Amino acid sequence: MTAPNRTFASDNWSGIHPEVLAAIVEANVDHAPSYGADPTSVRATQLFKDHFGADAEVFMAFNGTGANVVGLQSLLRPFEAVICAETAHINVDECGAPERFLGSKLIAVATPDGKLTPDLVESASGGWGDEHHVQPRVVSITQCTEVGTCYRVDEVAALADWAHRHGMWLHLDGARLSNAAAFLGVGLDAFGSATGVDVLSFGGTKNGAMGAEAVVSFRPEDAGSLRYVRKQSMQLASKMRFVSAQFNALFSGDLWLTNARHANLMAARLAEGVSSIEGVALAYPVEANGVFAALPSYVTEALQQHFPCYVWDEATGVVRWMASFDTSAEDVDALVARVRELMGTAR
Amino acid sequence: MTAPNRTFASDNWSGIHPEVLAAIVEANVDHAPSYGADPTSVRATQLFKDHFGADAEVFMAFNGTGANVVGLQSLLRPFEAVICAETAHINVDECGAPERFLGSKLIAVATPDGKLTPDLVESASGGWGDEHHVQPRVVSITQCTEVGTCYRVDEVAALADWAHRHGMWLHLDGARLSNAAAFLGVGLDAFGSATGVDVLSFGGTKNGAMGAEAVVSFRPEDAGSLRYVRKQSMQLASKMRFVSAQFNALFSGDLWLTNARHANLMAARLAEGVSSIEGVALAYPVEANGVFAALPSYVTEALQQHFPCYVWDEATGVVRWMASFDTSAEDVDALVARVRELMGTAR
Amino acid sequence: MTAPNRTFASDNWSGIHPEVLAAIVEANVDHAPSYGADPTSVRATQLFKDHFGADAEVFMAFNGTGANVVGLQSLLRPFEAVICAETAHINVDECGAPERFLGSKLIAVATPDGKLTPDLVESASGGWGDEHHVQPRVVSITQCTEVGTCYRVDEVAALADWAHRHGMWLHLDGARLSNAAAFLGVGLDAFGSATGVDVLSFGGTKNGAMGAEAVVSFRPEDAGSLRYVRKQSMQLASKMRFVSAQFNALFSGDLWLTNARHANLMAARLAEGVSSIEGVALAYPVEANGVFAALPSYVTEALQQHFPCYVWDEATGVVRWMASFDTSAEDVDALVARVRELMGTAR
Amino acid sequence: MTAPNRTFASDNWSGIHPEVLAAIVEANVDHAPSYGADPTSVRATQLFKDHFGADAEVFMAFNGTGANVVGLQSLLRPFEAVICAETAHINVDECGAPERFLGSKLIAVATPDGKLTPDLVESASGGWGDEHHVQPRVVSITQCTEVGTCYRVDEVAALADWAHRHGMWLHLDGARLSNAAAFLGVGLDAFGSATGVDVLSFGGTKNGAMGAEAVVSFRPEDAGSLRYVRKQSMQLASKMRFVSAQFNALFSGDLWLTNARHANLMAARLAEGVSSIEGVALAYPVEANGVFAALPSYVTEALQQHFPCYVWDEATGVVRWMASFDTSAEDVDALVARVRELMGTAR
Repeated sequence: MTAPNRTFASDNWSGIHPEVLAAIVEANVDHAPSYGADPTSVRATQLFKDHFGADAEVFMAFNGTGANVVGLQSLLRPFEAVICAETAHINVDECGAPERFLGSKLIAVATPDGKLTPDLVESASGGWGDEHHVQPRVVSITQCTEVGTCYRVDEVAALADWAHRHGMWLHLDGARLSNAAAFLGVGLDAFGSATGVDVLSFGGTKNGAMGAEAVVSFRPEDAGSLRYVRKQSMQLASKMRFVSAQFNALFSGDLWLTNARHANLMAARLAEGVSSIEGVALAYPVEANGVFAALPSYVTEALQQHFPCYVWDEATGVVRWMASFDTSAEDVDALVARVRELMGTAR
Repeated sequence: MTAPNRTFASDNWSGIHPEVLAAIVEANVDHAPSYGADPTSVRATQLFKDHFGADAEVFMAFNGTGANVVGLQSLLRPFEAVICAETAHINVDECGAPERFLGSKLIAVATPDGKLTPDLVESASGGWGDEHHVQPRVVSITQCTEVGTCYRVDEVAALADWAHRHGMWLHLDGARLSNAAAFLGVGLDAFGSATGVDVLSFGGTKNGAMGAEAVVSFRPEDAGSLRYVRKQSMQLASKMRFVSAQFNALFSGDLWLTNARHANLMAARLAEGVSSIEGVALAYPVEANGVFAALPSYVTEALQQHFPCYVWDEATGVVRWMASFDTSAEDVDALVARVRELMGTAR
Repeated sequence: MTAPNRTFASDNWSGIHPEVLAAIVEANVDHAPSYGADPTSVRATQLFKDHFGADAEVFMAFNGTGANVVGLQSLLRPFEAVICAETAHINVDECGAPERFLGSKLIAVATPDGKLTPDLVESASGGWGDEHHVQPRVVSITQCTEVGTCYRVDEVAALADWAHRHGMWLHLDGARLSNAAAFLGVGLDAFGSATGVDVLSFGGTKNGAMGAEAVVSFRPEDAGSLRYVRKQSMQLASKMRFVSAQFNALFSGDLWLTNARHANLMAARLAEGVSSIEGVALAYPVEANGVFAALPSYVTEALQQHFPCYVWDEATGVVRWMASFDTSAEDVDALVARVRELMGTAR
Repeated sequence: MTAPNRTFASDNWSGIHPEVLAAIVEANVDHAPSYGADPTSVRATQLFKDHFGADAEVFMAFNGTGANVVGLQSLLRPFEAVICAETAHINVDECGAPERFLGSKLIAVATPDGKLTPDLVESASGGWGDEHHVQPRVVSITQCTEVGTCYRVDEVAALADWAHRHGMWLHLDGARLSNAAAFLGVGLDAFGSATGVDVLSFGGTKNGAMGAEAVVSFRPEDAGSLRYVRKQSMQLASKMRFVSAQFNALFSGDLWLTNARHANLMAARLAEGVSSIEGVALAYPVEANGVFAALPSYVTEALQQHFPCYVWDEATGVVRWMASFDTSAEDVDALVARVRELMGTAR
């Protein structure tokens, strides 16, 4: 057996969607003003407003960590804290960039499914008005979560409401927001100001772009300073048109949705396949493009040879499989077959 | 008169060289490991070593500010300072990112031509051993400088020698290092460890790439930590292969040199053209791809309509023109003609 | 009933021990070099070495937060993390100063009694070698802990051993180290390099000083840079002789020990008293100068009127009482009597 | 000749004024709430308001560097910059603490006499609205300056006016503000909100205190956050009453003024004395308690043996002498005599 061309290691192992690449090529004509003052970028900004609402202020960034750090900076002073799930990307996968650049503490809360609730946030809050304690100022959620679950729109609204009633803000890490919107059957504006989101990171990279993320702020009072925050945070692209072009491809029609739906569909197929195998149990509801399942370690080990995957939890043996916009049914079926084969092996 | 398709506003107004774009397209096949563990990136790293020397450790980054901040972090603790020219990009064009992320003071030195010398650095040094003073630890130079001049190789070596004799390191911001190498007729390894450079930033973006920079360290003891510094500094691309592919295009043959030589040649043509106009004087020797000249303000104002350019110094009226890899002789001649026309206007 | 002159709210509600004040007065003669180059400070440094070992490098600081941040800075780079107990002062009572100034993540571990163990530290470690994760570099313990328990010397040694075997360092927050030494019946050198401690904060303030803390480093390689770290961290006193004089008073004889023993004794008396009251249970073993007990909220509320105390845990009703060097048996007995009286109240 | 008991090395070589020490002793009764909630601190805060105006918000701090950094934090975000004189303490004598903790760039301006003017500030300003440039937000002045000169009240007002018209704030480092007020014959409220100062640092240490500084803010909107900023910046004293007591001693009567006047008088006597010596020229007008004079290096060297002093400028041979509250006429005359003697030496 040889390694397949497309794996489930991560949705950032996938490449560039042909339409995104075409948009980059199309933007590559002559000279254009740098740093976002070009027609391609102007158009991308308008498309963001079309999708997220007219009050969306958009700041392209290089990567998800950068977008998160820039967005959070607009909401926080260093003595203020972020409450997030223990599994949050900002808490575990950004090499401490938030603490480093915000200067703020992250207060991490254990969750059953990667999702915060007002009760969980409340339990992690405290020390208000006490100068010895950091002051909670931001609730940060990831949509869809790092374990593939999705907040319902009313769950997001409830968190926003709780936050605002406590003088706090709601930040949303939307590295895979498209997948959540596809699952929920809602537009991206469902995660805008109407629902109470204050700032979000929107991810294009895992949805078919080459490398395109954005900070979307619904706080007009921050729009002026966010330009400086982005530049100082080393997230301002000089040849911005080529970042913007990627969003134009995703947002002009419904490519963002098509790609997300397809990835979700492939994850669902994978979930169905592996959960039919005796001894394999899904660790979390499969709602977006990620599938988590506990495997015996000898299976995981053998599987890695042809189907590299990320071991999510060494203790429980849970592995993570991510479907991408270009994952095929054959890719899924090959993985399922291989897991089935390995699970059947006498040990 | 209509606006030309290619201007001299900045070398980052240019697009992507066709061969660079082709390399991106070529890399866009199936899935590949993220974060640099893919064959395209492995090859790019090797090409860097081929050009800069086998002891070069390479860390791709998104932009020049990011590369500078990451590289400098490997050399400094926050109570240590960087000595640089007053005109240095790190000092004036990075929105304070170095101070913010290094925590260090930049000690800026006035220079006649953007170039530091051991004497200038010496004059800015002091406070050694005094706990009230920041401790100078890094000399940072830009090659070619922000005003288009080039350090000769022995000038770089002299600065490295001075730095090392004082327990300091030499950092080189090479956003346009290709242009300097082209001017000097030397290979990129002329700016490597043999000459005493400790860490440099290498810029691909202004030389035909879409967005590709790199930190090149010649200090093997930092190689381990630089990976974390880059990630924490929000400069680690997930779909790294598409950054690396750009370097492969530039470095497989001599595209980097061809592009740089061409831009330099166009700058020389421009310099010759405008300096032949009565009343126009060049502000700095034209050695790379930048031309600086003082113009009456009414000329600059009128010129901006069709030939946008950056006013380098409001006080002296000096403007900056940058030539790019795709600047044509016709572009140059049109600009020269327009300047000539405007200078001849009665006022 | 009127408020007593001495309360159990905190051991920093106490004043200055007469001998400490006398030492300040004694040092107040004529002029003396500032910043520590005076004879009083030279003597204090020697006394630290006498107590902690000849390899102790001493850097006075203003307060405990400052001492912790300075000491930790000598052990960490921003992408490296500190593992500490959830209850650690650095985690909950320093308003995020560690994250702000180290740039590092604190990884907080729940403990039954405020004490880390190698197993607990191990469970919180991980992500080694993964550039997306902060890299654990320091284990930080508090001696005695924030809940009044003491690490035995061999427990400290075991943690140091674990840390060193993992390429990590052991930091000790000794704001109340004297109380721990008094409880354990060991000298302060029991927490020095022989036991494997790398850096500690030593607190004089809560033991009879007016305001005197110190960073004690057992890593000679950091001695040079710690001077700058302290100054840049705003912890360098100009009229240092008056900070040093306080340590001279504590360390010339055994005032440090006498004071600590007395406070511990009063805490033991208090523990014995309140635990004899029906319905009052101690929350933690009373080993140093702190007593923690769960009270009904109406009792706590009524108690606050004359005996202000800190509610340690709103959820469980646990309050904290701290004894000081000047707490009298009468003070203790009055508190016990009042608690007994309130507990007997019908509700 | 033996070393005198009181030197001119620095005004922080002096000790504690007897009335300040008495106030500390007086405050040392029983227990008192920590962190400023004690009667001594409440009184000190009121005395600050009596002197600086009812709109003064007061936050005690440990040292001048701490007070400056805390105060500046209330005015700035990291992408904003401070314009200050090249000689400013924040620029040269705080080991980079401002850059480290503000994250901001300091823009240093050369001045003839340590004093900024609106024209000088204007010349250092620029880049407004350009995201690549730090945005000037604070003008910081030192009163009296590091070279012993004093801003007249209208000069401060002019700078405040310039700053406010440009959307900026005026920060005043008043480590020796008492000396300036004494020289100018004005109350401390001359440097309050009426004159346009937004935040200042007030220094007690060099005026007879043991170690007592304060941030005084005239921006009520910052009062809430400054408490957290101070704590996070490691500047919150636990036994605050002993810091506050020092201010009570200085401010209850006119001890602050008496001390400052005396130090100024001694500096004037010294200036008169040394300027009468052939070959000795004063480097700056002597307006407060500092005297700067250029001496031949062999004189300085010989002088150091008994009269240690700070060489202000190695290049010009200028040395600094500081008079203190306890400097006597005999001390001054002995120094003058020694300089005269050494200047008369054949070389």
